[in-house]
Amino acid sequence: MKAELMTIGDELLIGQVVDTNSAFIAQELQKIGIEVVQITSIPDRLTAIVDGLSQAQSRADLVITTGGLGPTKDDITKEAFCRYFDTVLVENSAWMAHVKELFAKYISTPINAMNYTQAMLPATAELLANPYGTAAGMWMENQHGVVVAMPGVPFEMKSMVTDQLIPRLTTRFKRPFIAHKTVVTYGLGESAVADLIEDWEASLPKALKLAYLPNLGKVRLRISGTHPDQQVLHQMMEEALKGLYPLIQHLSYSAEHDRPVEALIAEKLTQIGGSLALAESFTGGALAARFTQMPGASAYFKGSAVVYASEAKSSLLEVSTSDLEAYSSVSSQVAESMVVGAQRTFGAQYAISTTGNAGPSVGDSKEEVGVVYLGIATPERVWVERHEMGNHRERIVEKSINKALTLLYAELLKL
Amino acid sequence: MKAELMTIGDELLIGQVVDTNSAFIAQELQKIGIEVVQITSIPDRLTAIVDGLSQAQSRADLVITTGGLGPTKDDITKEAFCRYFDTVLVENSAWMAHVKELFAKYISTPINAMNYTQAMLPATAELLANPYGTAAGMWMENQHGVVVAMPGVPFEMKSMVTDQLIPRLTTRFKRPFIAHKTVVTYGLGESAVADLIEDWEASLPKALKLAYLPNLGKVRLRISGTHPDQQVLHQMMEEALKGLYPLIQHLSYSAEHDRPVEALIAEKLTQIGGSLALAESFTGGALAARFTQMPGASAYFKGSAVVYASEAKSSLLEVSTSDLEAYSSVSSQVAESMVVGAQRTFGAQYAISTTGNAGPSVGDSKEEVGVVYLGIATPERVWVERHEMGNHRERIVEKSINKALTLLYAELLKL
Repeated sequence: MKAELMTIGDELLIGQVVDTNSAFIAQELQKIGIEVVQITSIPDRLTAIVDGLSQAQSRADLVITTGGLGPTKDDITKEAFCRYFDTVLVENSAWMAHVKELFAKYISTPINAMNYTQAMLPATAELLANPYGTAAGMWMENQHGVVVAMPGVPFEMKSMVTDQLIPRLTTRFKRPFIAHKTVVTYGLGESAVADLIEDWEASLPKALKLAYLPNLGKVRLRISGTHPDQQVLHQMMEEALKGLYPLIQHLSYSAEHDRPVEALIAEKLTQIGGSLALAESFTGGALAARFTQMPGASAYFKGSAVVYASEAKSSLLEVSTSDLEAYSSVSSQVAESMVVGAQRTFGAQYAISTTGNAGPSVGDSKEEVGVVYLGIATPERVWVERHEMGNHRERIVEKSINKALTLLYAELLKL
Repeated sequence: MKAELMTIGDELLIGQVVDTNSAFIAQELQKIGIEVVQITSIPDRLTAIVDGLSQAQSRADLVITTGGLGPTKDDITKEAFCRYFDTVLVENSAWMAHVKELFAKYISTPINAMNYTQAMLPATAELLANPYGTAAGMWMENQHGVVVAMPGVPFEMKSMVTDQLIPRLTTRFKRPFIAHKTVVTYGLGESAVADLIEDWEASLPKALKLAYLPNLGKVRLRISGTHPDQQVLHQMMEEALKGLYPLIQHLSYSAEHDRPVEALIAEKLTQIGGSLALAESFTGGALAARFTQMPGASAYFKGSAVVYASEAKSSLLEVSTSDLEAYSSVSSQVAESMVVGAQRTFGAQYAISTTGNAGPSVGDSKEEVGVVYLGIATPERVWVERHEMGNHRERIVEKSINKALTLLYAELLKL
């Protein structure tokens, strides 16, 4: 069962907007055993959409589009669908009622003619409701398969996928089972890892596929498989992993869950009733955001002192000014005072501190760009690690956050 | 002059990775007058790549691929290029030297046979150097045009685009001028804005195109134009804008710069030698990260007290516990104490505070999910605004951050 995704909108082609919709939809389709074979972004142009649909249907049983369903003139997905499916727009009275209700409830301006066009839908389309907006989703079929159109606004699209599209697809199509397992290795480059597991890789059954995803100091090994029998697939995967683990046991590896490491920390802390505080210098709030963007953070997360300026390190966390002068803010001593300060100030059991040079300039420190100190505090002990993270700003921050989270998670796993 | 982008990698099609490369490349091509007509993501499969190249070349003069250039077995872009361009892989001695040098300098493991394959490149390819990695970029030509392959790792790709690809393209191709201008309106929905400017839109010259980009409480109007004569295009744009502004002057609108509002604040604060501190509750560090992810933040940014827990509000910012009890943490009183506390604790001239219910649960507050209080402090005054931001967690945080930044920037513009 193959699917193709089409995102429609000029804003994608001039790079004004990053297409995050496709990754979300692809993940959700994967989970129910539908393989995405291509993702295409095309402009708001009638012929581009019609040609795109035709080509996509030649490759896939299911085509899903997002975007171009707004009321303004630049949005023409509905017209293109009418052309492609040889039908016309007719007013849908149930949807008209919904549009009116939304306006009455949430929108201060009076409803206008353009808004009413949101209730004009292709005559042969089945509706996918959109509780958050005026653009209805559409489900259409022809001899080649199913074509679905959804709004491009991410949160409207996401709820439509979860609540309506996925349930419909699972009843409409018979699908094989798909499984993915990702193992993360730390400390070796991808070719060195590949060398280690060469024979194992060669002996993998045909139904399983291996991919290497190197990123910021780690290499993710992704094993994917497809099989009509879930039990057989499951066993094949288990066998493969059993063969893999001994080969990489000297690396610090971990099975990747569907969730990022901060989610695993969150789960563990919530479980044990633990609490966490942060003291961030160069990570500047990005570490805190990893936790607070997940619902439920208030159960364990106390807060973060983002102490960018040296004086802030002293005033919020009582880092001694003589240490700051003697060792500079990028030092083991300061990282340690910060992490202890966070633990104390926020009254938390666990704490992480970050201080380092993310560049481009080195500031008041004596260390090179890329040198970072990460402090970890637990109820039992406090320690600091020094790492060199390269010379690329974004990457230094990202790698450091991942490293610090991994260090804390390793501690929590010992409990 | 038309271009098409192809991102290659199974990780894109299972939604494990969001394609951010295409937006970056599209933006850079736009700047030099090259129009992107399609973006396609395809799997690491030989036929998919070969077919993809052939189709892309039928639509565009320039095809740019990223991804699939690693040393491991799953990466097959080079093989696909050899097949498509009917050539073979040969060892490039200059590139071999580079690979060896990188290993000697940065990588602790010994170089292996797989790494050497990184110096095997299509015989007819011109090289695009990659100072940060072992994957070389490739520039190849046939009767249909130019095809370029670049590594998928974003920071390697980005430096290759800026330092090598763009200069090459500007000398190799004659291009028309492309211009975009975006005007942001606040306070009305897209159809209401469209109503207002209907006649103006209808009277736009053919060379100009208008798009509506509604997002989180604002509608961006993007006017795009293409013309062989830069002067003519410039004048056309100016005329169009002159007609537009009076129609929307009762809305709070602003011309959008290429840069986000935090970059404008950063520039302004650096200019005037001003300083900024934050006190964040439900935005949880994400507001601070907006500033600290830009280089040069230390010139004006003091830090942020991410005070998620109530006790942290008291201990770090001296928010009175009786206020917290009487009004709850989601209140005008607490937002005001927080913003004043941030100003004082960090010794900053300007400060922003955020407290609100991002949901899904309401915590200790008396307010509904979606209600937020945003505090602004300047050397002259302190005030708090209450807003309702809907019921979607991510969106509440995002909208609130944008609102708070816009409020501060409006103040700075008065200077």
